[in-house]
Amino acid sequence: MKSDIQIAQEAHLENIKDVAAKVGVTEDELEMYGKYKAKLSDELIHRVENNEDGKLVLITAINPTPAGEGKTTISLGLTEALNQKGISAIAALREPSLGPCFGIKGGAAGGGYAQAVPMEDLNLHFTGDFHAITSANNLLAAMLDNHIHQGNALGIDTKRIVWKRCMDMNDRTLRNIVIGLGDKPNGVTREDHFIITVASEIMAILCLAEDMKDLKERIDKIIVAYNYAGDPVTAKDLKATGAMAALLKDAIKPNMIQTLENTPVLVHGGPFANIAHGCNSVRATKLALKLADIAVTEAGFGADLGAEKFFDIKCRKAGLKPDAVVIVATVKALKYNGGVPKQELSKPDMEALKNGIVNLDKHIENIHKYGVPVVVTLNSFVTDTEEEYEFIKKHCEELGCEFALSNVWADGGAGGIELADKVLASFDKKSDFKPLYEDELPLEDKIMTIAKEIYGADGVTYDSKAKKELDHITQMGFGNLPVCMAKTQYSLSDDASKLGRPEGFTINIREVYVDAGAGFVVALTGKVLTMPGLPKVPAAEGIDYDEENEKITGLF
Amino acid sequence: MKSDIQIAQEAHLENIKDVAAKVGVTEDELEMYGKYKAKLSDELIHRVENNEDGKLVLITAINPTPAGEGKTTISLGLTEALNQKGISAIAALREPSLGPCFGIKGGAAGGGYAQAVPMEDLNLHFTGDFHAITSANNLLAAMLDNHIHQGNALGIDTKRIVWKRCMDMNDRTLRNIVIGLGDKPNGVTREDHFIITVASEIMAILCLAEDMKDLKERIDKIIVAYNYAGDPVTAKDLKATGAMAALLKDAIKPNMIQTLENTPVLVHGGPFANIAHGCNSVRATKLALKLADIAVTEAGFGADLGAEKFFDIKCRKAGLKPDAVVIVATVKALKYNGGVPKQELSKPDMEALKNGIVNLDKHIENIHKYGVPVVVTLNSFVTDTEEEYEFIKKHCEELGCEFALSNVWADGGAGGIELADKVLASFDKKSDFKPLYEDELPLEDKIMTIAKEIYGADGVTYDSKAKKELDHITQMGFGNLPVCMAKTQYSLSDDASKLGRPEGFTINIREVYVDAGAGFVVALTGKVLTMPGLPKVPAAEGIDYDEENEKITGLF
Repeated sequence: MKSDIQIAQEAHLENIKDVAAKVGVTEDELEMYGKYKAKLSDELIHRVENNEDGKLVLITAINPTPAGEGKTTISLGLTEALNQKGISAIAALREPSLGPCFGIKGGAAGGGYAQAVPMEDLNLHFTGDFHAITSANNLLAAMLDNHIHQGNALGIDTKRIVWKRCMDMNDRTLRNIVIGLGDKPNGVTREDHFIITVASEIMAILCLAEDMKDLKERIDKIIVAYNYAGDPVTAKDLKATGAMAALLKDAIKPNMIQTLENTPVLVHGGPFANIAHGCNSVRATKLALKLADIAVTEAGFGADLGAEKFFDIKCRKAGLKPDAVVIVATVKALKYNGGVPKQELSKPDMEALKNGIVNLDKHIENIHKYGVPVVVTLNSFVTDTEEEYEFIKKHCEELGCEFALSNVWADGGAGGIELADKVLASFDKKSDFKPLYEDELPLEDKIMTIAKEIYGADGVTYDSKAKKELDHITQMGFGNLPVCMAKTQYSLSDDASKLGRPEGFTINIREVYVDAGAGFVVALTGKVLTMPGLPKVPAAEGIDYDEENEKITGLF
Repeated sequence: MKSDIQIAQEAHLENIKDVAAKVGVTEDELEMYGKYKAKLSDELIHRVENNEDGKLVLITAINPTPAGEGKTTISLGLTEALNQKGISAIAALREPSLGPCFGIKGGAAGGGYAQAVPMEDLNLHFTGDFHAITSANNLLAAMLDNHIHQGNALGIDTKRIVWKRCMDMNDRTLRNIVIGLGDKPNGVTREDHFIITVASEIMAILCLAEDMKDLKERIDKIIVAYNYAGDPVTAKDLKATGAMAALLKDAIKPNMIQTLENTPVLVHGGPFANIAHGCNSVRATKLALKLADIAVTEAGFGADLGAEKFFDIKCRKAGLKPDAVVIVATVKALKYNGGVPKQELSKPDMEALKNGIVNLDKHIENIHKYGVPVVVTLNSFVTDTEEEYEFIKKHCEELGCEFALSNVWADGGAGGIELADKVLASFDKKSDFKPLYEDELPLEDKIMTIAKEIYGADGVTYDSKAKKELDHITQMGFGNLPVCMAKTQYSLSDDASKLGRPEGFTINIREVYVDAGAGFVVALTGKVLTMPGLPKVPAAEGIDYDEENEKITGLF
């Protein structure tokens, strides 16, 4: 069986100018990055802003196995299938991070015959967006510490600095550090932390900003620390906004590449799906809606996290109205939710499947609460059986829900025709999208609503510090912001071991803080790592560059 | 008076395809990064490898004032002037770092009417080379600490780790840090240091590598630490080379942009001129020699550091033979070397000029030791007087040395015609280039030779640890490498306050180490900072992005 990178490297790529032309984008509206990648200009965005919007389809998933369910693969396969049927469709996806690429998970460009290419470029530096975000994040940190070192005119309390440095790398040893050691010229000594770039608030801001003006206004509002009086100190106070915006002038422009079937794909931004909202940029999603009849987008982790935040943060803030939701499931993940250990998921097990399918049921119910039609698709694996397929299909039909088997990994767009047909059929059911809660609802009630309605919890408890900070955030005037929940992706609850459809549990909020620039309040449940580590044998060890043939090997 | 960025933004830029065509480079040989930047393909390098080499001109300087002498400005102005005369000439320059850009010094794209454009892109992320180097550097660091965390099979002595993390930022608080705090999953606790990206050995390697094969061989050899037995542990031992090479696959390709007069400029790599060799990449310099009749290149700091390392490291290793050297001086710097304080350099002072010109004399003598003809040029300032010009011109003529006044800052190429003529005339004197010392000379003798012959020192002293390490480096088999001297740029001695042409001093070597991948032994004199800090009012505070007009302001 060929690896993803082999399939990608054997593909015939078209010049991105020709790919862009398929959706009416001219060469002048592209900024080329080599022959197969391009950034899309603001002129293009202005030119098409009065076009009618296409339909918006969200790809989400059930609670996954550690290997993930293949949302990107399905997003790309569905887009290819729609294009095969003569319907203009563009996927608007998230950019991969170098961290997982060199760690356990590998790249994030889809898989098999449903990939975005050039996959090596996409998985490595791509068009430099993440590096620009890293630079802007760390410039702000350097200016903050320099301000203190040079006299601290703003009276920053060094015990209440909340801005962290970042790096696009899985590097556990940078999680907790002490900086500024040595004599006076070496700056202020304090505890600090590195987070992975996708966890930076700059990433969330870039993904939610409508344009450069909005981006700058959001950067202005970033709270970096509190002063001795307890008042917030912002990026604006440090006079950092302009230089940060200059660093981000190109990063804010959406990127276009292509599927293996030479149809356009927008890939732009990629905030962490745990402590941020986990969706690609608003600008790219909106542009896809203007350029194509159908825009296919995804949100990180399962529907309890990704879809909820897509609806309640991204759609709410950007005024987007999704027309359909595809929930991706795998036989493996359903069995995993039914209690089968990771190592035994390849064995047929009808009993586990029957136990685990309650997880899917809950996600279907949840999406219906937002008023959006649901299509369930199974991302097929060679180890699946017909009996398993039939059971899942029948189950979905009994719930009045469209179902399609997807073979896009093996067959590309041809393997997604059934799914494409079901998605098109779902448009006949009227979408009546509304977010789960109103802006005006107090923060505590917002958290309670999500916990009860989406997770199925009985209630919410708070660590005392978290409760106090929630009140403080409301006092500072941020009570009308939506809540960005940080929770394990493996369970509907905040306990990764509670699989299926857990009941009789409460959600505990350990910490809260406000991302004033991004425009949400983060509520952390359980332990959330904002800087992953490398495994015993990092994927990096298997990656090489073959200088004879000028290609990368071993990237997956 | 217009600022550099105003001049740059008012310029008419040609599409880089058209600029490249002027030196016979086809569109297929370019990888476009927008309309005005391109990377040059390996296919181009192979196609022209049998072309006859052009003449190689090095731009260096006397010991400078803190503002610098304008080597990049002269390099670009000379290139423009040669092109105005109908001679094909390309400048091969260093890429700017974000650190100085946001700190005191500002950007590094030339000045006035002798700039490389687009200057904003060049000064900010450009084509991502520095970000790729940062990523490769920090991947190696993450793999190193992860190896120790996961069991330390290689027996790495955590007290003898020599690899440091890096960031392209002036951030003093990261100079001395402690990493790996917290409980066990957060990695090994140890002291660490961030250096600025230009100080990374990866930068030096990229600039000295002939091709990807050479790059990988050099990365293999990087010494990251010593094990408990005292033996070196390398990047190869950590199995990091392949992934690092994959990260650098585009960064190794030279970049082309243009002068304000629409002639091609190669800008590629930029190792720190203090702890590394301070020259742009060998690949770019060699390509410029193949594409044009004259390649103009520069080396960091004054001739005692930049030119010495250009000759003894870059030319030695790459087999380059310079045909002429231009020493850039300013009236200000000559007066500074004559003892005038920084604040009073704008006042005419013939006495100080006469005292300070001995600095120029020494640099002329030094270049002659390498057998290369010298042209002296004055980078003119509005505060200079005719009397000062006449004195310097006469002085140079008495030394049998070509002299030209350069007005390229104010007049672009037209202001460099006199210099161009003198450079062309200097080619009639036969260059008989040879490095200062042989490979076989013991390391200690190499250092002594440089100190006596170039700096004019009476001798060399060693801190005891440095002497011991020099012996260790020789024992490890690195005695045949050239020495990369790290010394203040403000004096020929290792004491920044000794201006002019100091005598009766010794050079003290504080520390030595081997950059086995780059292929040189670093000898540090005095205090050398490998991570600069921001000033009280960082340049970043004045930078902004004007979203109405889609342009950066305040960058200088």
